[in-house]
Amino acid sequence: MAAIESDIGELDWAVSTDITVNWGDMDSLGHVNHSVFAKWMETARMRFFSKIGMMDLYESSNIGPILARIQVDYKAPVLFPDVVNCKTLVSKIGRSSFDMRYVIHSSNQKNDIVAVGKVVCVLIDYKSGKPVEIPDTLRRSMLGIEE
Amino acid sequence: MAAIESDIGELDWAVSTDITVNWGDMDSLGHVNHSVFAKWMETARMRFFSKIGMMDLYESSNIGPILARIQVDYKAPVLFPDVVNCKTLVSKIGRSSFDMRYVIHSSNQKNDIVAVGKVVCVLIDYKSGKPVEIPDTLRRSMLGIEE
Amino acid sequence: MAAIESDIGELDWAVSTDITVNWGDMDSLGHVNHSVFAKWMETARMRFFSKIGMMDLYESSNIGPILARIQVDYKAPVLFPDVVNCKTLVSKIGRSSFDMRYVIHSSNQKNDIVAVGKVVCVLIDYKSGKPVEIPDTLRRSMLGIEE
Amino acid sequence: MAAIESDIGELDWAVSTDITVNWGDMDSLGHVNHSVFAKWMETARMRFFSKIGMMDLYESSNIGPILARIQVDYKAPVLFPDVVNCKTLVSKIGRSSFDMRYVIHSSNQKNDIVAVGKVVCVLIDYKSGKPVEIPDTLRRSMLGIEE
Repeated sequence: MAAIESDIGELDWAVSTDITVNWGDMDSLGHVNHSVFAKWMETARMRFFSKIGMMDLYESSNIGPILARIQVDYKAPVLFPDVVNCKTLVSKIGRSSFDMRYVIHSSNQKNDIVAVGKVVCVLIDYKSGKPVEIPDTLRRSMLGIEE
Repeated sequence: MAAIESDIGELDWAVSTDITVNWGDMDSLGHVNHSVFAKWMETARMRFFSKIGMMDLYESSNIGPILARIQVDYKAPVLFPDVVNCKTLVSKIGRSSFDMRYVIHSSNQKNDIVAVGKVVCVLIDYKSGKPVEIPDTLRRSMLGIEE
Repeated sequence: MAAIESDIGELDWAVSTDITVNWGDMDSLGHVNHSVFAKWMETARMRFFSKIGMMDLYESSNIGPILARIQVDYKAPVLFPDVVNCKTLVSKIGRSSFDMRYVIHSSNQKNDIVAVGKVVCVLIDYKSGKPVEIPDTLRRSMLGIEE
Repeated sequence: MAAIESDIGELDWAVSTDITVNWGDMDSLGHVNHSVFAKWMETARMRFFSKIGMMDLYESSNIGPILARIQVDYKAPVLFPDVVNCKTLVSKIGRSSFDMRYVIHSSNQKNDIVAVGKVVCVLIDYKSGKPVEIPDTLRRSMLGIEE
């Protein structure tokens, strides 16, 4: 479980979304619970999926992504009140799986990075439960290639 | 358990705060889980408590509020993506307890009201666990009386 | 917003379910966040809905319940580790709406009551969004009348 | 971000804890949200920390663990109702950091593994924010060495 590499500054993020911290996101150590960072990454991921037509594919064909793996590296605690910014992009595309990377900044901490993350998703047929090859149109959308 | 009365439009709210909806706030019925509305109300309440110096009182004297009762009336479902706005004010002050009212609007639903709420808080001494009389300065802050 | 009456000891509960407290359920005040109590009530409610065939009705006819109102009276804080017990029953049935009551006990607090609650549900047609009359078979199941 | 190795069956787990699934843990895809698995791992971790005296150390000296990294590999979806079992152990101890491994089983799925996880924790002085060397007594407790 190596650290997520830190070439964050040079990446061309596909989605950037601001998210309000709720008071109740903090746990009894007095800072935002670590599991909430995973929810923020998910919010950015779902915005990306909407943008590239992943959700349309799911509704028309029952083909959609599942989350196979998540890694989060915590850099600094987040406290209420704050607004975080979460960015994501597809960092690798395989036959039926793809990787996404994330960076989370805190506006209350001079926009410092509070966490970086990575996930592995697999495109599956929700009826059979089996992996399916990523269609070319989706592959191009993931890579930000305009039609 | 009567409905919360609907003179919402005429109230002079003390706090108004925008809150981002996370994708993971939705439950398996496909809309934001009802318990999340209570978290939004809490976020507005904590902003109000900061504003009136309630948190300073707690740190200097161990006197602070506990939540004794909550009521939420649900008017419309909320879906991701959305930004809700939650407003609150103190609607009644007793010797050691006070009531707060809430209204939540959805920006995706033309700012329609999606929920209204009420809570009863009691000011207690966290050491003894007993209710204490609300200090006059705090009472004036709650009512929005400028010093 | 009157207190929920306390004839709790005499009620004939329809569902009784034990629920583990997670460490992350606690907020920065060091006890379980108030919104989690609403999730526990929901878990008991969903067990009841399964038991009386509400979910089958929903899948066969798109008729199902929505939550119109919730009230929770908090009696004592809950801390990790603990196992709470949540009980529920239908306390009132109208034409298309019904009330449910709840009681939550903490096993770590000698089974003392930590909260009581009430909700109002309305049976609706999910296609039209309009209230529908509660079918007689469902009404009998709600009341615990054996066929 | 390699897969977590699968010698799970041979490990000598330090803590094994059963956790009830709440209905509201499920998201709009109809299974338990991926962030909840991280909360379950945290519940097992906190039980372990209590067991080895980590919490006593924190209260007497302000020295305690922070979470630096988490990885979760998802093997199968979890649905309500269910009771999961989460096990953990310390898999590696360094000068000031230590690794923990996790396995989660679902009782509704014939006790199949639904997820495995790993975290990296660092022992820090909460006043200075700096890493501190893990004391020998704590090190022995982590390794399960009886005094």
